[in-house]
Amino acid sequence: MQLLLSATAYERVKARIAPFVGELDIVTVTGPDSFQRNGQDISVEEVDPEIVWTTLDAYGGGLLPTLMGRILKGSKTQWMQTFNAGIDAPIFKSVMAKGVRLSKSNAQAVAIAEYVLAHALALIAPIAAQRDLQARKEWKSTPYREISQTRWTLVGAGAIGTEIARRAKAFGVHLTVVRHSDKPAEMADATINMAGLPQALPQSDVVVLACALNDDTRDMADDAFFEAMKPGAILINIGRGGLVDEDALKRGLEAGKPGYAVLDVFQVEPLPADSWMWDHPNVRISAHTSNSGHGTAARGDQLFVDNLQRFLAGDPLINEASPSEVGL
Amino acid sequence: MQLLLSATAYERVKARIAPFVGELDIVTVTGPDSFQRNGQDISVEEVDPEIVWTTLDAYGGGLLPTLMGRILKGSKTQWMQTFNAGIDAPIFKSVMAKGVRLSKSNAQAVAIAEYVLAHALALIAPIAAQRDLQARKEWKSTPYREISQTRWTLVGAGAIGTEIARRAKAFGVHLTVVRHSDKPAEMADATINMAGLPQALPQSDVVVLACALNDDTRDMADDAFFEAMKPGAILINIGRGGLVDEDALKRGLEAGKPGYAVLDVFQVEPLPADSWMWDHPNVRISAHTSNSGHGTAARGDQLFVDNLQRFLAGDPLINEASPSEVGL
Repeated sequence: MQLLLSATAYERVKARIAPFVGELDIVTVTGPDSFQRNGQDISVEEVDPEIVWTTLDAYGGGLLPTLMGRILKGSKTQWMQTFNAGIDAPIFKSVMAKGVRLSKSNAQAVAIAEYVLAHALALIAPIAAQRDLQARKEWKSTPYREISQTRWTLVGAGAIGTEIARRAKAFGVHLTVVRHSDKPAEMADATINMAGLPQALPQSDVVVLACALNDDTRDMADDAFFEAMKPGAILINIGRGGLVDEDALKRGLEAGKPGYAVLDVFQVEPLPADSWMWDHPNVRISAHTSNSGHGTAARGDQLFVDNLQRFLAGDPLINEASPSEVGL
Repeated sequence: MQLLLSATAYERVKARIAPFVGELDIVTVTGPDSFQRNGQDISVEEVDPEIVWTTLDAYGGGLLPTLMGRILKGSKTQWMQTFNAGIDAPIFKSVMAKGVRLSKSNAQAVAIAEYVLAHALALIAPIAAQRDLQARKEWKSTPYREISQTRWTLVGAGAIGTEIARRAKAFGVHLTVVRHSDKPAEMADATINMAGLPQALPQSDVVVLACALNDDTRDMADDAFFEAMKPGAILINIGRGGLVDEDALKRGLEAGKPGYAVLDVFQVEPLPADSWMWDHPNVRISAHTSNSGHGTAARGDQLFVDNLQRFLAGDPLINEASPSEVGL
């Protein structure tokens, strides 16, 4: 069974996948359409892998087109482990249309959940007020409405949503989770679907978009969404830029609904230099980097190792995508 | 059974303690050595309460000396519910020396835990870096060492420590709790006593002082303590100012141990205007206000109501102090 992955990624997991090496023909990608087996160059014709693992290092090294090309031009790929949490890019539909099983990454969930909580706490807890008082050498108490007293609406109950929920619930927030399924979301005080949003938004102090981008969710945060929000509420988008109608957001901020927008993702990335968002006092911008915790890479490696063992044993894969997620 | 409390506090809990009113002679304090029963002034000689509840409103209104005076000059007080979490002030020793049972407040624990997590996250997560990049309109990722990868040492396993632990553990930190008892602390990965600190400190990214001030803990954060810390670590003191030798802290900060100090309490409060701490770039100052969440008052009221029911029923009180805590 041929496994195709970057040489760097192979080095990282070599020891851990050693138990399975007898079942594997390991091929590493070393450059655009350049491959090796056991340190020896091999021709592209020899590369038609049953298993492909795409990694952030391959993406950074410009090797993603080569890895994806082997899946799309070949005929044998059965399973692809991706480093992406979101699979809205059209190429994933092409991959799954060939019958390839696709498992998404949950490795960034911890870092993204930390981003959400850190930004929410920075806006809710009176840290800025305390810094201002310190600068003026003023000894003055800073009363504030506790996080424990806030209501959150979290759109998305995937790996990232679950890690956000775990942390938010430790603070005692009232948590409403929005998902397609009727099944109550883990740790949620209430589980609703998209149709319930107009009722949930007016009561929500924090609204987090942690869902996939698809035809149901594109531009979901539109004028009606912002009009329904609670004045002063915080919107946090760590899902996809396409979830938010940015013109509507501008109008919403002018009306104080939301009071703040914490945005890690945008309709156009990198965010253009002339975007109004850079300068807006109530917008917090980061560069699609909420996943950039130092632990993400190690968790991604371990996810692949775990899923490889499951795949070879015929067990269910962790975080496997259903074809409906890519519109099939 | 006479219950003495402020008129304001009585108004707040009136409905909830109505079931017990048949057993109670309710006396409210309306001013310095001024009291009422059923809206009628009564003389100080009539006031020798079995139960006293001190509240933040009484403190703010200058009525605390009157309330405490009734306990200390009287002979009947059996139980006092205080709004204080820490009982290091000498008056609590005087109260307990008379045989009065003392229950401490746990109402501020939620707000203080939010303070600790908000400040820790503000320093660990790359929010400041993201704000700087935004100001420069720079699209750049902000990698960082996750909170999930940090080790925390939490000194104190009381009500406040427990709320801090709950939130820190939701982030996946490795938590060492320092306490007197050998009993493993809730949610702790390791429980040690003060003798174990020199081994724990060099590995701790965050050190939180959430313990009582007493002869064992006074100036516990001294030169040796700071020398043992991990370079760049964060010290957070929400316990008492007396836990930290502030001269030693200054030397510690110069050596990067700790890297940051987040201080809500100080040896002298209010912090004098000429203190070096106000201007130190790596010190975060707040005005003994970590308890100032909007939920604290309501939790304090409910704690009194719950403890009143317990007291009248002869059940154990929530958060009752042992005489050893005041040095008896």
